Amino acid sequence: MEISDIIKNYFEGKGWIEEPKNLYEPIDYAMQSGGKRLRPTLVLMAVKLFGGDVERYVETAAAMEVFHNFTLLHDDVMDKADVRRGRPTIHKKWDDNTAILSGDAMLIKAYQMVASKVEDTKLRSVLDLFSKTAIEVCEGQQYDGDFEKRKDVTPDEYFNMIRLKTGVLLAASLKMGALLAGASEEEQRNIYDFGMNVGIAFQIWDDYLDCYGDEKTFGKKIGGDILCGKKTFLLVQSLIKGGASQKQTIRQLINNNNILPEEKISAIISIYTQLDMPKLCEEAMDEYFRKAMKSLSLIAKSDEEKAPFIAFAKKLMGRKS
Amino acid sequence: MEISDIIKNYFEGKGWIEEPKNLYEPIDYAMQSGGKRLRPTLVLMAVKLFGGDVERYVETAAAMEVFHNFTLLHDDVMDKADVRRGRPTIHKKWDDNTAILSGDAMLIKAYQMVASKVEDTKLRSVLDLFSKTAIEVCEGQQYDGDFEKRKDVTPDEYFNMIRLKTGVLLAASLKMGALLAGASEEEQRNIYDFGMNVGIAFQIWDDYLDCYGDEKTFGKKIGGDILCGKKTFLLVQSLIKGGASQKQTIRQLINNNNILPEEKISAIISIYTQLDMPKLCEEAMDEYFRKAMKSLSLIAKSDEEKAPFIAFAKKLMGRKS
Repeated sequence: MEISDIIKNYFEGKGWIEEPKNLYEPIDYAMQSGGKRLRPTLVLMAVKLFGGDVERYVETAAAMEVFHNFTLLHDDVMDKADVRRGRPTIHKKWDDNTAILSGDAMLIKAYQMVASKVEDTKLRSVLDLFSKTAIEVCEGQQYDGDFEKRKDVTPDEYFNMIRLKTGVLLAASLKMGALLAGASEEEQRNIYDFGMNVGIAFQIWDDYLDCYGDEKTFGKKIGGDILCGKKTFLLVQSLIKGGASQKQTIRQLINNNNILPEEKISAIISIYTQLDMPKLCEEAMDEYFRKAMKSLSLIAKSDEEKAPFIAFAKKLMGRKS
Repeated sequence: MEISDIIKNYFEGKGWIEEPKNLYEPIDYAMQSGGKRLRPTLVLMAVKLFGGDVERYVETAAAMEVFHNFTLLHDDVMDKADVRRGRPTIHKKWDDNTAILSGDAMLIKAYQMVASKVEDTKLRSVLDLFSKTAIEVCEGQQYDGDFEKRKDVTPDEYFNMIRLKTGVLLAASLKMGALLAGASEEEQRNIYDFGMNVGIAFQIWDDYLDCYGDEKTFGKKIGGDILCGKKTFLLVQSLIKGGASQKQTIRQLINNNNILPEEKISAIISIYTQLDMPKLCEEAMDEYFRKAMKSLSLIAKSDEEKAPFIAFAKKLMGRKS
């Protein structure tokens, strides 16, 4: 069976709803929302690459998706986001308390799932990887929130934040698969580095889409990051590349709550465009794509076996070739 | 070394603060708040009773305290509680987002701590117990919230809720210690049942203190449960024991937001007193104390070895003899 079908079957067959319903129905709603199921796909792709038993580890793989959805649930409360994947967020459809508590239960469920089908000999490594990754994702989310309140953020700080917020979970999903399949530590490290670089490129792409994307395919409103004061690749770079007056205009606009949101968004995007930010995003994504390809090249597997990883990387960062 | 000193030393030597500070400082604040450290004490008491290595498992024991503090952190956000153990709650001192995210990180830390010093052969049992307990605590919290919005709750529903919300973590702490010490399944079950019954009695005592306690020693404001519409032992029983007019008055008062909070609290407590609720609380606590003693009697250890458990149970429910 194809990996995508194995994952689809798992989620379709999984019943989330138990008592009390108000705890479990939001979890069901979150898990039914679809999404790309990227992270479990990555786990099983790596299991397959390193010759492991793909069907055995579907629940461990699915745990990464449950964890990811837990982070979205709590992030949406913290960001006061109303829409996710084209549907009302859980704190909108229910309330904040439901989103907090159901999120907590999802994190615990993820721990149960990650462990349940793993051999005892691998249990500690799996758990250590999962917990380390989970805490790093929280750290990334904290930096993201902290940065919203700051005027300037350096590119180094930005990259550290997106490494934690986005990179580690994609990287760890691949490493999890390698670990489950019994790959060597070096192989685990290389596949992790591949995932990390793809993840960083993916986040830059996501930052780009917040300004230049299509609301329908993006699933979120354009300019959300701008209104939150999020420190995106475009903002951080504009505050370096821009002339004195452009920088000043950006800083004034970000802190100005007396203009209409649409005006704020279009004024800032207009400066981004003047500063050639779409091109800069593309160059940065290319750089991380190259780094990812380099890590992949260190793994002693055939081009055919590695092809799905290259296709995945391209798809994730919106590349056509 | 005494168990209390082992735990005290552990927490005094533990550094919580890492980067980003805004994630870890609230955890440090939560963990420095003291409290009775009941749950780790119970873990190590059970380790000792069943002949295990008390010093080895202090971090596993401490994990139960970190988990408990995580639940308090999120509960305080959900309950909009301003004061905890006589200090501002974390969402008051920082904000809701900080309390949510630092709480998430604490839950992950608890998982790291519960596993770190456990032998590989015991790891799965430890984790299964921890996750099962954690999810039950979430269920209990959800019932507690659901019940606030309902007018009537049966005693059975009330007892199921406090079993999950309060009982399971005390019971599981004892079972954790038994498991770590290599006790038999029967011994694990008996010490669990002991803890469960003590926990239920403790929650009834806590419900009592919300009305009849001393604010200074209680650490919370009197009547908090009444203002939230919490379904306490006293409320559930009053809606059964009370006459028609008393029941009606209680129901009207609970839903009445047009009177001063102090008036609402004193009017409801006055009906509780008319209905002899303090005596009924005492009788119920006695019943669960007896059940706890029965479970303890099934464990084949000397009276001297069991004495600390009896002392603990008495202390927890405010008994002098």
